[in-house]
Formats: sequence, C-alpha cells, structure tokens
Amino acid sequence: MKVLIVGGVAGGASTAARLRRNDENAEIIMLEKGDYVSFANCGLPYYVGKVIKSKEALLLQTPESFYNRFHIDVRVRSEVFSVNYAKKTVSVRNCETGESYIESYDKLVLSPGAKPIIPKIKGMDLKHVFTLRNIPDAFAIEEFIIHNKTKSCAVIGGGFIGLEMAENLKSSGLEVSVIEAGSHVMPSIDTDMAYDVQNYIRSKGIKLYLNSRAQEITNSSVIFENGIEVAADMIIMSIGITPDTEFLKDSHILLGERGEILVNDYMETSVNDIFALGDAVSIKNIISGQRVLIPLASPANKQGRIVADNLCGKNQKYNGSQGTSIIKLFEMTVASTGEKEESLIRNNIPYKKVFTYSSSHAGYYPDGKMMSLKLLFSPLDGKILAVQIVGYDGVDKRIDVLANAVRFGLTVYDLQEMELAYAPPFSSAKDPVNMLGYVASNVLDGKMKVFYLEDISSLPKEAILIDVRTVEEFENGHINGAVNIPLDSLRSCLNALDKNKVIYLTCQIGLRGYIAQRILDQKGYSSFNLSGGYRLYRAAEINKAGLL
Amino acid sequence: MKVLIVGGVAGGASTAARLRRNDENAEIIMLEKGDYVSFANCGLPYYVGKVIKSKEALLLQTPESFYNRFHIDVRVRSEVFSVNYAKKTVSVRNCETGESYIESYDKLVLSPGAKPIIPKIKGMDLKHVFTLRNIPDAFAIEEFIIHNKTKSCAVIGGGFIGLEMAENLKSSGLEVSVIEAGSHVMPSIDTDMAYDVQNYIRSKGIKLYLNSRAQEITNSSVIFENGIEVAADMIIMSIGITPDTEFLKDSHILLGERGEILVNDYMETSVNDIFALGDAVSIKNIISGQRVLIPLASPANKQGRIVADNLCGKNQKYNGSQGTSIIKLFEMTVASTGEKEESLIRNNIPYKKVFTYSSSHAGYYPDGKMMSLKLLFSPLDGKILAVQIVGYDGVDKRIDVLANAVRFGLTVYDLQEMELAYAPPFSSAKDPVNMLGYVASNVLDGKMKVFYLEDISSLPKEAILIDVRTVEEFENGHINGAVNIPLDSLRSCLNALDKNKVIYLTCQIGLRGYIAQRILDQKGYSSFNLSGGYRLYRAAEINKAGLL
Ligand SMILES: Cc1cc2nc3c(=O)[nH]c(=O)nc-3n(C[C@H](O)[C@H](O)[C@H](O)COP(=O)(O)OP(=O)(O)OC[C@H]3O[C@@H](n4cnc5c(N)ncnc54)[C@H](O)[C@@H]3O)c2cc1C
Ligand SMILES: Cc1cc2nc3c(=O)[nH]c(=O)nc-3n(C[C@H](O)[C@H](O)[C@H](O)COP(=O)(O)OP(=O)(O)OC[C@H]3O[C@@H](n4cnc5c(N)ncnc54)[C@H](O)[C@@H]3O)c2cc1C
Ligand SMILES: CC(C)(COP(=O)(O)OP(=O)(O)OC[C@H]1O[C@@H](n2cnc3c(N)ncnc32)[C@H](O)[C@@H]1OP(=O)(O)O)[C@@H](O)C(=O)NCCC(=O)NCCS
Ligand SMILES: CC(C)(COP(=O)(O)OP(=O)(O)OC[C@H]1O[C@@H](n2cnc3c(N)ncnc32)[C@H](O)[C@@H]1OP(=O)(O)O)[C@@H](O)C(=O)NCCC(=O)NCCS
Repeated sequence: MKVLIVGGVAGGASTAARLRRNDENAEIIMLEKGDYVSFANCGLPYYVGKVIKSKEALLLQTPESFYNRFHIDVRVRSEVFSVNYAKKTVSVRNCETGESYIESYDKLVLSPGAKPIIPKIKGMDLKHVFTLRNIPDAFAIEEFIIHNKTKSCAVIGGGFIGLEMAENLKSSGLEVSVIEAGSHVMPSIDTDMAYDVQNYIRSKGIKLYLNSRAQEITNSSVIFENGIEVAADMIIMSIGITPDTEFLKDSHILLGERGEILVNDYMETSVNDIFALGDAVSIKNIISGQRVLIPLASPANKQGRIVADNLCGKNQKYNGSQGTSIIKLFEMTVASTGEKEESLIRNNIPYKKVFTYSSSHAGYYPDGKMMSLKLLFSPLDGKILAVQIVGYDGVDKRIDVLANAVRFGLTVYDLQEMELAYAPPFSSAKDPVNMLGYVASNVLDGKMKVFYLEDISSLPKEAILIDVRTVEEFENGHINGAVNIPLDSLRSCLNALDKNKVIYLTCQIGLRGYIAQRILDQKGYSSFNLSGGYRLYRAAEINKAGLL
Repeated sequence: MKVLIVGGVAGGASTAARLRRNDENAEIIMLEKGDYVSFANCGLPYYVGKVIKSKEALLLQTPESFYNRFHIDVRVRSEVFSVNYAKKTVSVRNCETGESYIESYDKLVLSPGAKPIIPKIKGMDLKHVFTLRNIPDAFAIEEFIIHNKTKSCAVIGGGFIGLEMAENLKSSGLEVSVIEAGSHVMPSIDTDMAYDVQNYIRSKGIKLYLNSRAQEITNSSVIFENGIEVAADMIIMSIGITPDTEFLKDSHILLGERGEILVNDYMETSVNDIFALGDAVSIKNIISGQRVLIPLASPANKQGRIVADNLCGKNQKYNGSQGTSIIKLFEMTVASTGEKEESLIRNNIPYKKVFTYSSSHAGYYPDGKMMSLKLLFSPLDGKILAVQIVGYDGVDKRIDVLANAVRFGLTVYDLQEMELAYAPPFSSAKDPVNMLGYVASNVLDGKMKVFYLEDISSLPKEAILIDVRTVEEFENGHINGAVNIPLDSLRSCLNALDKNKVIYLTCQIGLRGYIAQRILDQKGYSSFNLSGGYRLYRAAEINKAGLL
C-alpha cells in the first residue's frame, strides 16, 4: 500500500505515525508545502511572547526523526497543487526549485488545514501587517518587532489567536489594542459570559474596541468604518480562518460552501480511497447534529488516528466534535464546550440555563479563586448541551468533566452524583460541577424559578424587586429599584409583603435568592430569582462603562 | 414533621440545610455531642500546619447562623446515648450539665460519623498521644506543640490523615517519622504506584518505616514489634477510623460487623423512619457491588441531600460510591478512584492493566510536570474499573475525568474520543486521559502485548530482554540482563535476532517499547513490552534502597 499524506502537521503527522505502527510495510510519503512538519501551531503565540524560548521546542518531529523512527518519506517545501482521482495521482511542486512532478497513490490523505482569512481592506498588503499560522509567520513577527522596535500593535479579531497574541504582545511590553467587529470577544462563548473577560482584558491595560470593523490600515494606524482611528506600529490580522483547499477545486472531491472538504463519519471524502481530516473538513457537531467547522488540534489529532486505522481496513467512526476549547488570558482561563446559547437559539434547540459562581477549592483553604459557570441543558430531560466557564484556577478541570457530560449524554441529575476527588487544596465536598447539577435540577424540577439579566429592563411595573443581601452589600451597589430585605430577616418581614404581587429576588450570585424563594414559595408568594445575581449584573455594568 | 438529626457536621448539617429548603414548616433539631457543628474536618491538618490560619475559617456555620438562616434548632454538647424506635424517641445527654432528657421524633437521621481507632498498645493513654477528628483535637495538638516546644513526632499510620499530618508537621519544622504496618503507604493505591510516593516522602526528609507495627509508646519513643525504637516527643495515632455507633447497640437498628449502620439504597436503616448516612454507614461500591465503608466528605454531603429529599417523600436512590480520593503531599498529588488491583484480585474481578506517564500539559510549554497513571479495565469489554495517578500538576483534573468514566460505565474506547480542552498551558492535543485510552485499547485489542514489573524476576531463561532506549539512557542504568538496541536502530538489527526466542522489550515508559513491538510483530517476532518501563522499575529500586 502506498499512502500519500498532504499536510505534515497535526492531522497529517498523526495519521502517518499511527499508520506506520499499523503497517510496517506501507509506503508512506508526507507532502508538506511549508518548511516544517509536526510543529506546535498552538505554541506560536507563546513563542512570540518568549514564554517558549527556543525554536526547537516547537518542533515535535523533523523529517529526519520521522524517517529514523517511522521510515516515513517526509518532503517539505512540497506543495500538492492538484489531485487526479481517476489516475490516482497528485501533482507536487517543489517550492525550492519550482519544478513539479507527479506522485501516484493507493490511498490519499488530505490534512491541509486552514489559512488565515485576509479581508479585502486597504492596506492589507503593508509590510507591518501579519497573520499567524506557522513557524515562519512567528519568526517574521518576532523579527519585525526587534528590527523596528515596535511599540504598539493592533490585533484585529478577538478570537483565540487574536487574544493569545494580544496577551503575549502586551506581556512583551507593547501597547495593544484589540479590534473586534462583533459585540463581544471570544465567539465560543455568549455575550453574558464575555463581560468578565472583557473587563479583565481592559484591566490588563489592553484597549478593547467592540462592534468595530477595520476599514483601512495605514502605516501607523487602523481606521474603522465609523471613522475612529487607532494608532499602531504593527497589525495582527486574526479575524478567522478558512479551509486551505484551493488545490482541490478541480479534483472532483466534494467541497462545501466554505471550501471545506466534505467527509462521512469514517473521514472518507466523496472520492474512493481519499480521506480528509482536520481544519479542512466539516464534521458533525454532537449537539446540533449539523456539519460544522471546528478547527482545533484535539479533533485533528484524533481523526488522524482514526484515518490511519481506516486506511488499514478498520471501520472506525469519528463520532463528532463538540468544540471544547480553552484559552489562558494572563491569569484568567476561559473555556467552553457544546453549543452556546446564541447557537442554540439559531438552531432552534430548546434549552434552559443557569449561572453559578464557585470557588476553585474549599473556601477555608487559602488561595481559592472564584469561577463563573453557565450551564445550558435540555428542558425535556436535563441533558447537558453546553457549558462555559470563566475563572482563574481549576477552570480547565471543570470544563473537562463537563465536556464529557456533554459528550456522553449525561443530565443535570448525573452532575449531582459525580463523585469527584475532594481534599481542601483541590475542590469542595460539593464540587462546582455538583453545584451546577443541584442548581440546574432545581430549575428543571420547578423548585427554583429564575429570571435573567436580560429580563431586568422589562420586569412588570407592579413587581417587587427584593435584594436579599446584607445592608452593607446593598449599600455598596444594587439594581435600580430594588428594596433591601436581608435574607436572615425575610421570615420576620413576610407580613409586610403583598401576596398578589410577583416578587423578583436578587442576591450576590443566586444562592441566597434561592433560599429566599424557598421560604416565599412555601408561604404562598410567587417569586423569581435572578440567576447569576448582582454579580453578573455588575459585570455587565462594568463592561458598559468600559466600552470605547 | 419533627426531624431529629444526630451529628451536626458533613452529613447532618447537609441534611438539615436541604431539608429546610424542602420544607419551611418542619421542626428540625440537630443534636451534636461536640462543641462545634458544620466544621471543616478536612481542613484540620492544615490548621495544625498553619496553612489555614484562623479557627473561624474552619467553621462553615455556627448554631446561631444555622438558626438565623434556616430556623434550625442546633444543640451542641448534646449527646444522643440511646434510641427508642418503638416510642420514636432518643435520649440526649447535655454534656455540660450531665443531665439528660428525652426528645421525640417523627423522623430520625443518624450521621454520627466515625471515630479514630485506638489500638490496645502500651502507652496509648500518655498525654503526648493524639488523634485527630475534630476542632478540639486540632487545638490540643497545636497547644501541645507550642507548650512543649515539640521537636519530633511519630505519625502511626500512613493513610490520608497520617500523611497530611506528616506533611503539615514537617512543614512546621518538626522531625517526622511515619510508621506504617502495611507494606506501603496510602491503602487507596497499589504497591507499584506507592513507590513514587514513598520515594518522594523520604526525599522530603520524613523517615518512613514500612511493615512496622507499633507495640509500645513511651514518653520519648515508639517501639515496634521487631524491637526498633524511634524517638518522638509527640505521637499522632492515625491507623484508621470506625463507625461511632456504640449508642445504637440496643436500638434495634441493624448494624454490620464493623459496627456500621446498614442502610438500603434510599439511605433507610432497618427501622422505619430512621435514616443514616456518612462515615457511619456502609454503602454499595459501584465496581464490586459490595457494601463497603468509604468515609469521605463528598459521599456524606451528597447522601445528606438525598436523605433530606427522601424525608420529604421523594424516592431518591444513592447509587453507590467509588472511593474517589485525593491527597496533596507537599507538591505531589496522589489520587485514585474505583477498585485498586489488590482489591480486584481479592474480589475475583477479572482485569487488565496499563501504566502511562504523561506531562500535565504540552511538553513545549514551560513547567509541565510528569504524572504516572495506572488504569485497570475489564478484559471483556474494556470497562474502566479503576485509576490511580501520582504526579504534581493536573492530577486532580485527570482523576475527576476518569472518576466519571468509572461512574458512568465508560470503556477504554470512550477515553480515546474524549474531546478535552486543549491549549498548551493546560493539556496536550492528546490529553493523558486520551493516551490512557490508546494504550489500554492497544492492549485490549492485542496490538500491544505487555509484561509487568512483577514478571521481570521470572522471565523465561531463554528470553531476550531488549532495552530500546538510547545508548546514553541505557548506560545510566538498566534492568539486569538487558541488551541495548536503540529503537531507531532496530529495523537494521532485525537479522541478528532469533525468531524462535521470545523478546521482552523495555524502554523508559513503554512508548518506544510499543513502537519496537509493532515492528517486531509484523516481522514475525513474538514480543512483550514492559508496561511502565524502566521508569517504574527504577522507582521500585529506589524504594527498595530507601527501606528502613
Ligand atoms: C497560532 C495558532 C494557535 C492555535 N492554538 C490552538 C490551541 O490552543 N488549541 C487547539 O486545539 N488548537 C489550536 N490551534 C489550531 C490547531 O493548530 C489546528 O486545529 C490543527 O493544527 C489542525 O490540524 P491540520 O492537520 O488540519 O492542519 P495544520 O496543522 O495546519 O497542518 C496543515 C498543513 O498542511 C500544509 N498544506 C496545506 N496545503 C498543502 C498543499 N496543497 N500541499 C502540501 N501541504 C499543504 C500546510 O502548510 C500545513 O502545514 C491553533 C492554531 C494556530 C495557527
Ligand atoms: C482530619 C480529617 C481530614 C479529612 N480529610 C478529608 C478529605 O480531605 N477529603 C474527604 O473527602 N474527607 C476527608 N475527611 C473525612 C470527612 O470529614 C468525613 O467523611 C465526613 O465528615 C463524614 O461526615 P459524617 O457526617 O458522617 O461525620 P462527621 O462529619 O464526623 O460528623 C459526625 C458528627 O456526629 C457527632 N456525633 C457522633 N455521635 C453522636 C451522638 N451519639 N450524639 C450526638 N452527636 C454525635 C460527632 O461529634 C461528629 O461531630 C477527613 C476527616 C478528618 C477527621
Ligand atoms: C507527534 C505526532 C507526530 C504524532 O505522533 P504519535 O507517535 O502518534 O504520538 P505520540 O508521540 O503522542 O504517541 C502516541 C502513541 O504512543 C502510544 N503510547 C503513549 N504512551 C505509551 C506508553 N506509556 N506505553 C505504550 N504506548 C504508549 C499511544 O498508544 C499512541 O500509539 P497508538 O496511536 O498507536 O495507540 C503528531 O501528533 C504531531 O505532529 N503533532 C504536532 C502537531 C500538532 O499536533 N499540532 C497541534 C497541537 S500544537
Ligand atoms: C455547609 C453545610 C451546612 C451545607 O449547607 P448547604 O446550604 O446545603 O450547602 P451550600 O452552602 O453549599 O449550598 C448548596 C445549595 O445552594 C444552592 N446554590 C448554590 N449556588 C447557587 C446559585 N448560584 N444559585 C442558586 N442556588 C445555588 C444549591 O442548589 C444547593 O441547594 P439545594 O441543595 O437545595 O439544591 C454542610 O455541608 C456543612 O456543614 N458542611 C461542613 C462540614 C463538612 O462538609 N465537612 C466535610 C468537608 S470539610
């Protein structure tokens, strides 16, 4: 069997290594148009930020090591520019010499990845405008900064790569602006969860422009559609990526609307003996069932192993992705899994939601850090649809636990009974994950009736809004129109409350409001509790105040 | 409804709080023989070690706060000394006045916990011998040390509480010896995983005596059965705990052999309207199905919420425990879940096992820490039976992910497809959990044939033992009798190998041995690969050298 693999990084190299372990006798050729194979794309922003200090650290394998260990013929600077499915050949251009040749295959694997989207705006071609996909890109940015003693940078696009670059450049001493066309950064999370992230980014001295579309880049600035001009010596363009599949245009391999390669559950393309994987393909989202682009390394690596097995006659299914993702932002961690609320709405998937706020470990043990969690679940059976977490320590742990809850179809009731490892430095006897389960099941069972941030402006005029925090907390700030009845005084104030009016409760995070609601409920009052509490409300207010 | 709750800490207080939220009108009385309710037992070692600095931090609730928030009548220093199930009353002794009274109930909840086992050895009654269960115990230890300027301590028992105390006392500047009757510390893990722990404990300057049974305590030492005498100004006795249920002896409530209260899945005792939970009861182990004692806070808290619901007519099942546990030891973390190998053998449960060794996060991102993992799984279907992890960072995350794999019946194949959150500071594109899944499924599918540490001494005489690490690694130490063929030279050495001899492979952790095996297998050689590799072998050797 002769196998050609196009693309030598996450998907391609994973396929190659596993394939060799499966089949010592296969002829394996890996064709990579770039200078390097098997490199840590995900480490590039940290290389620019000098967190990763050596170029060598970024290289997991080289063509030599691949040959020595796996007897794989790795050809870098070798671009595949067309595929002839009928003859089972590809045309390869040697990027050094410019010469090209034809290479035949029994099986072809396509893992060409995705390339940065280049918007058609004036100034895109200036020398101080960069994108970041591979090692030479990172070198170019590094050299530009050193050579030009760059003082300021505008990052256009507030997604993963944009924010990682913003952090790393800021930490390197540059003035950084982030310019985002959407209403919030991090398209993987919802607006309400982005407030804390945005407030934090600003607190780090990064200028954040939301709802701002770059229209022109000059030698020293970015000009927005609304006329605002932001000074910048350097530009990082990170508004998204698109499948790097132009070479397949005439190949008979079916591509989707966004240029993505269409594959079935076995990672087979529409053409026999051709497999595809990674950032270049669309895959099934396990929540919505739709074919989506989820350009992340973990799916690419896993698909690689599956493709290698299927090349050898195994019938392994890739069961779909869920978009589990995480980002470090200075000390903050932001993570999500499943379909966010805004997507559920778009996809007409019914859901309920709750917000909680928990410490990374037992409150009585030093240095616990609070994290904010949002859970989306099915109103029918409590099946978990998505989770978003913003915090500092322990966010990565909870997102992984909850990612599996999404993946394996668990419900909010299952969260309750999870027996997670507890000792004071690590967690609480009721882990934040258990707590999410309690709160969500209370909502599902009708034990807690909630309202949300977005409802505050439209509460019925005759409603009573009661803040059950302490007098001191209340005086430090509260929602307009709220009256203060501290929880521990509520029982003695019941007589003063009108049973005919609906009561809207709020506290700091939702816990005391819930306890208040339990009392009111059983005494014949009708009430709703603000999920997320004043804390979330306040995050929204701070964000509003910070808008540029 | 009038509910009496015996015991006011993890199980009792959790029941009380949820019960109030369920039923605003119930009369709830919580009877606690000690001075405090709702305190952080698990924080006590850290209070002694001054990691937790204030006594107040240990108190999650007080009788006053419980009354103010939940209208619960909390009576401390109130010991229940008998239960009359026929009359539905309990007898309560006021520990201050010595007077007693009778209190009636509609429903009775028993959460009396467990007390330290006091061995019958000479000197146990000396004033410098302590156990640690509650706040007064912690105060007593603290005061003794200050008052006597204690310089050295012998901790008898190398379980959780013993080791946490050893760390905290050592960090406070005392000379610490740990004396363990068993062949290894931490009864929750297997011998092979304990090697690293023991080596680490010794590296911290703690003297560790294994297979050592204390026979006598003198004013200045502990004397073992084998005559060895270890000096100590103070003794912590932590050889285990036993249900604190003597007051139930004549109650008609069925107790088990170990004095534990017997309950059904609904946490009901053998007597109507009496529930029990926490350290005092036996519960179903979800792997073995057997009734076991799992005295941990997370089960106790969860059972409390279930008991509260069942008191109000819900029919909530407690689905069993799995003994998920974790301990911090200086910078090390040791965690486990499910039934360890030694228990599987005892219970005649068939299993397979693998060892892996993974970095807490991407190798190319700074400060990753290695962790050692042991996975036990069913040879029939790959169902995960148990996991043990010893490492530094990120152990708590992986054990939680894997605890759920155990709980929800997942298999090694499911581990492969888990889509966990990956960015370089948090993980690898193939998380250590995925990696466990790969390795275990290779074993299950017969793709990797393994042998173990315990097999080394009995390898067939005619076998060839090949170490496939580099020449340098080999020269730094190897298994006796091994010959060195570095992996990348193996293909060119094949002709020299005798196909009639079985080959035993070893490398550092098992990965290169596996790749070597894949080559050999397909070239017609029969081979086995050492799971855990030379690293695990070396840990065992270091442990042996450190034995006192
Ligand atoms: C800066 C950055 C940070 C990232 N951070 C994270 C992160 O933290 N977590 C995460 O999960 N993911 C992250 N990713 C995404 C992750 O790297 C990708 O999802 C993953 O690499 C996709 O694997 P792939 O094989 O599909 O594509 P790639 O790894 O991009 O490999 C494709 C290769 O194919 C080559 N190629 C393309 N066309 C041809 C052709 N015609 N002929 C020959 N060769 C060709 C390309 O040169 C490229 O090297 C990051 C990506 C970047 C760029
Ligand atoms: C030092 C220490 C460290 C620990 N660390 C951890 C850890 O890190 N992780 C973990 O999961 N678990 C840990 N535990 C175990 C955990 O604290 C227990 O599993 C949990 O507290 C059990 O709850 P319970 O309600 O059954 O018993 P307890 O919390 O012990 O409460 C029982 C209460 O009942 C009272 N009582 C007993 N008999 C009577 C009676 N007749 N009348 C009135 N009152 C009575 C007792 O005084 C006691 O206060 C630790 C325990 C200790 C002691
Ligand atoms: C590194 C790379 C070449 C893949 O190589 P690989 O050999 O498949 O991967 P690893 O080195 O992680 O080894 C995994 C294999 O070792 C085995 N293994 C791991 N630990 C083992 C142990 N202790 N004992 C036995 N086998 C072990 C696994 O089972 C797996 O083999 P399998 O797939 O045949 O089951 C490829 O992933 C790559 O190029 N990555 C860099 C690019 C990238 O991923 N970028 C995005 C993220 S930055
Ligand atoms: C603290 C203690 C009194 C229990 O009190 P509790 O009120 O049940 O527990 P918590 O304060 O954690 O609150 C949990 C409740 O708040 C709710 N809640 C938490 N966050 C919420 C939020 N953001 N919005 C709404 N409700 C929320 C949960 O749903 C849960 O209520 P439920 O059980 O009715 O569903 C008891 O566990 C205790 O005494 N613990 C100390 C002893 C101990 O556990 N020792 C061993 C470990 S050291």
